[in-house]
Amino acid sequence: MTPRYTLHYAPDNASLIVRLALYELGQPFRTRLIDRQAQGQRSPDYLALNPHGLIPVLETPQGPLFETAAILLWLSETHGALAPRPGDADRGHFLKWLFFTSNTLHANMRMLFHPEQLIGPDRAHQRAQRDGLKVALKTHLQKLDTLAGDAPPWLGGRALSVLDLYLPVCLRWLALYPQGETQWFSLSDTPALARLAARLEGRESAALASAAEGLGPTPFTRPRAATPPEGTAT
Amino acid sequence: MTPRYTLHYAPDNASLIVRLALYELGQPFRTRLIDRQAQGQRSPDYLALNPHGLIPVLETPQGPLFETAAILLWLSETHGALAPRPGDADRGHFLKWLFFTSNTLHANMRMLFHPEQLIGPDRAHQRAQRDGLKVALKTHLQKLDTLAGDAPPWLGGRALSVLDLYLPVCLRWLALYPQGETQWFSLSDTPALARLAARLEGRESAALASAAEGLGPTPFTRPRAATPPEGTAT
Repeated sequence: MTPRYTLHYAPDNASLIVRLALYELGQPFRTRLIDRQAQGQRSPDYLALNPHGLIPVLETPQGPLFETAAILLWLSETHGALAPRPGDADRGHFLKWLFFTSNTLHANMRMLFHPEQLIGPDRAHQRAQRDGLKVALKTHLQKLDTLAGDAPPWLGGRALSVLDLYLPVCLRWLALYPQGETQWFSLSDTPALARLAARLEGRESAALASAAEGLGPTPFTRPRAATPPEGTAT
Repeated sequence: MTPRYTLHYAPDNASLIVRLALYELGQPFRTRLIDRQAQGQRSPDYLALNPHGLIPVLETPQGPLFETAAILLWLSETHGALAPRPGDADRGHFLKWLFFTSNTLHANMRMLFHPEQLIGPDRAHQRAQRDGLKVALKTHLQKLDTLAGDAPPWLGGRALSVLDLYLPVCLRWLALYPQGETQWFSLSDTPALARLAARLEGRESAALASAAEGLGPTPFTRPRAATPPEGTAT
């Protein structure tokens, strides 16, 4: 039987978060590797799936979806797992932190990793932006750590949520990228988030993702650069 | 009867989008003005509602919600209107553009309006960031115009969606803010989005919001600076 989903991915890209969700949901899927070295995400075929040229795309029976958090939320609704359901008492609280993770934490991280995209090639401008982003990211992480310490049912709870997948991947990236610019970050500064990272690391979904994308034995608590069996992370 | 909702707002802030949604849903609500001149959004009482110190907060029977798009999505789910429902065939497509609007369009706009927040006080750095943001925003708007021209049911369709509210407010702000930095923007560059703006302007919700926040007779197609009956926009 043909799997109903196809994940367009590159190793250690945001597609990793969707991959974890698909494993956790027990949904079989095909993968299509995007050749980042050849700017495959800017090819006409890929842009027809996602006009923004960003990774991932998840092809579904309803068409191609993009935006990591949108895919996560849609998967949770479609399969009735990994999030409070619409109508649940904690749905709004889950949504407000999912949007914050997407539009602030993740958006700021993308700028840290790709400063040239908004501010151009000037090193002094990039430096100023990076310095500001590091301050902002520390603040975001502290707030998320406070939240995780409060242990709402949809973060670190018995029933895994998409935020339990999304945040550890963000922590991984902050420890790794951009190369030579990670000294400001230490997972031990946010102990409640560190527990989320350790918990995910013990799950089968993490082992499967690590094998598929070459993330090593401790991809979230002590990450090392990806050595993927195919493709490249950047 | 006490309204079930309380909207913490400042004139012409992102609370305007939530206000429009509440009017469209026919939901009565109280308002609490945030005194921006006194940095009311940084007061301990407000930070207890939203630790990020951002406007809006919507107090609900389930507790305080923040993040504009999260509130919009939650309201749509709670009242069964203004968005494709979970399980609908176009739910994923709606979600991917809602997240894009939140984490890219709106996030980039906030940086354009408040450059000092990420990059500090240096004018040259701010200028470089602004120049990059204007290029990015033009690209975002063109993609959204293409989308609106394709007329999916949840954008410009018979049944209004939260994106039909969110995008015209963004267009308003791009025409007005930051003062002296708006020459790059022209609503006529995006005719399909301009039609969304004109349509919203003809609705009672827009007239009510304009009266409440002093937005004038053409708040989306030919906006002028707000002259609110109470409070200040910045």
